[in-house]
Amino acid sequence: MIDLRLIGIGTGNPDHLTREADKAMRAADVILLPRKRSDTADLIDLRRMLCAGLDGPRIAEFDLPVRATDAPYPDAVEGWHDAIAGAWRTEIIRHLPAGGTLALLIWGDPSLYDSSLRIAARLKRDGMAMRVGVVPGITSLQALTAAHAIPLNRIASPVAITTGRRLRDHGWPSGFDTIAVMLDKGCAFDAIDPAGVEIWWGAYLGMAQQALAAGPLQETGEEIRDRRAALRAEHGWIMDVYLLRRAMA
Amino acid sequence: MIDLRLIGIGTGNPDHLTREADKAMRAADVILLPRKRSDTADLIDLRRMLCAGLDGPRIAEFDLPVRATDAPYPDAVEGWHDAIAGAWRTEIIRHLPAGGTLALLIWGDPSLYDSSLRIAARLKRDGMAMRVGVVPGITSLQALTAAHAIPLNRIASPVAITTGRRLRDHGWPSGFDTIAVMLDKGCAFDAIDPAGVEIWWGAYLGMAQQALAAGPLQETGEEIRDRRAALRAEHGWIMDVYLLRRAMA
Ligand SMILES: C[S@@+](CC[C@H](N)C(=O)[O-])C[C@H]1O[C@@H](n2cnc3c(N)ncnc32)[C@H](O)[C@@H]1O
Ligand SMILES: C[S@@+](CC[C@H](N)C(=O)[O-])C[C@H]1O[C@@H](n2cnc3c(N)ncnc32)[C@H](O)[C@@H]1O
Repeated sequence: MIDLRLIGIGTGNPDHLTREADKAMRAADVILLPRKRSDTADLIDLRRMLCAGLDGPRIAEFDLPVRATDAPYPDAVEGWHDAIAGAWRTEIIRHLPAGGTLALLIWGDPSLYDSSLRIAARLKRDGMAMRVGVVPGITSLQALTAAHAIPLNRIASPVAITTGRRLRDHGWPSGFDTIAVMLDKGCAFDAIDPAGVEIWWGAYLGMAQQALAAGPLQETGEEIRDRRAALRAEHGWIMDVYLLRRAMA
Repeated sequence: MIDLRLIGIGTGNPDHLTREADKAMRAADVILLPRKRSDTADLIDLRRMLCAGLDGPRIAEFDLPVRATDAPYPDAVEGWHDAIAGAWRTEIIRHLPAGGTLALLIWGDPSLYDSSLRIAARLKRDGMAMRVGVVPGITSLQALTAAHAIPLNRIASPVAITTGRRLRDHGWPSGFDTIAVMLDKGCAFDAIDPAGVEIWWGAYLGMAQQALAAGPLQETGEEIRDRRAALRAEHGWIMDVYLLRRAMA
């Protein structure tokens, strides 16, 4: 029996770690650290650093399969998740042939735009005896609202959490005055009418490179476009998230 | 100058506390603990317990003003926030006449359906010299998805976070397959067509009384209605949150 713990670790600031995450890391027999091709040294080092102080668990690094970029989106994701499940299985057989507790360190919270729960479900479906436990972690969205010291919602109002792709393809969701946008490949806010919209933006939240901007979308949108391009060039990668707010339609 | 730290403490499980929250609590000169009339001993005790181990800060308890229930909703909230701002001011003058660091312990995360940031903004608007810092915390919604070991979103899909009142008054928001419902005075899911909808429900998340239920809304909705009434009668209060998911319309 494999006891899989998906541990939310926040967004790079080791102080985001909860006591529960700390305990779960220490209690693991093995911590699996995936090396992504697209990950820069920054991101791998952050996870290695979190593990460095632990003397209980063995740390097992493995290469994460790469997503096919030629297949259409849902197929590419399905195939990629199958490949990751296969890689996990290989590592589990290698490191825990008689069972035990396996931990994975998940950026932010394992519930939010992360595929680990779906990959674990694949292994169970294919017959692996596995219990799955989740340790919540501070999300990038919480790191954003905390850094700006702003509420997520207006009083008693709803909030939409969505993706850059969806904002581009479907526009502003009706009935919402606040939307949080993640997984944006690049400034999807360009696709909406900026009149009366405010933006709070953050990149590399919780990390040494953290960058923030806020203001009316009309002007601040341009500033963000320029800074984003410059930061990406400087660091070789970027992750950002933002909140858009406007008067309720 | 007052340095106000709004510290997210999670939902009652002391292991939800992050290192940052722990440090911020220890670094405070004063921790303000509001006593709510509607709070049961359970909730006050949980916060007292979190403070018990600290030897730095002074702990100052005060009675939180009660919300007028006869005024219309937005007016009642505005008046209530004014009254709370007044109570904070009184405590600040009493305990930190020469300035210093003041901490408030916020259930979950200070950004999510919490009024502390708005109350701090009132004090600043009225001339108090104050810096506001936010320490993110694990929300009840994250405690819910972790307890059920489920993702918040479907792959690449958006999520709506909304209130019981809004679900009742406006129905299922179009364009969303997943909605998270908070601040529900009682089973607002009754107001929607249950066909094809699944529910994941949790009450007293992170606490000793934690209760969970999940399944098709058609049957599980009834079970939750009964358990909710029984739990409320047993404990004298209840807080619950749930996720509803259906096929994308
Ligand atoms: C695959 S999702 C993972 C989200 C993560 N599970 C969480 O809870 O934040 C990746 C997206 O999260 C956001 N993100 C993650 N880490 C971030 C950071 N440190 N700064 C800004 N955005 C971040 C970005 O929108 C990015 O495209
Ligand atoms: C005023 S809001 C505060 C939310 C909080 N800031 C958070 O981050 O979870 C109160 C609502 O949060 C949810 N809630 C808070 N604590 C909870 C708990 N321990 N279990 C279940 N729901 C909870 C309920 O929906 C409740 O009506």
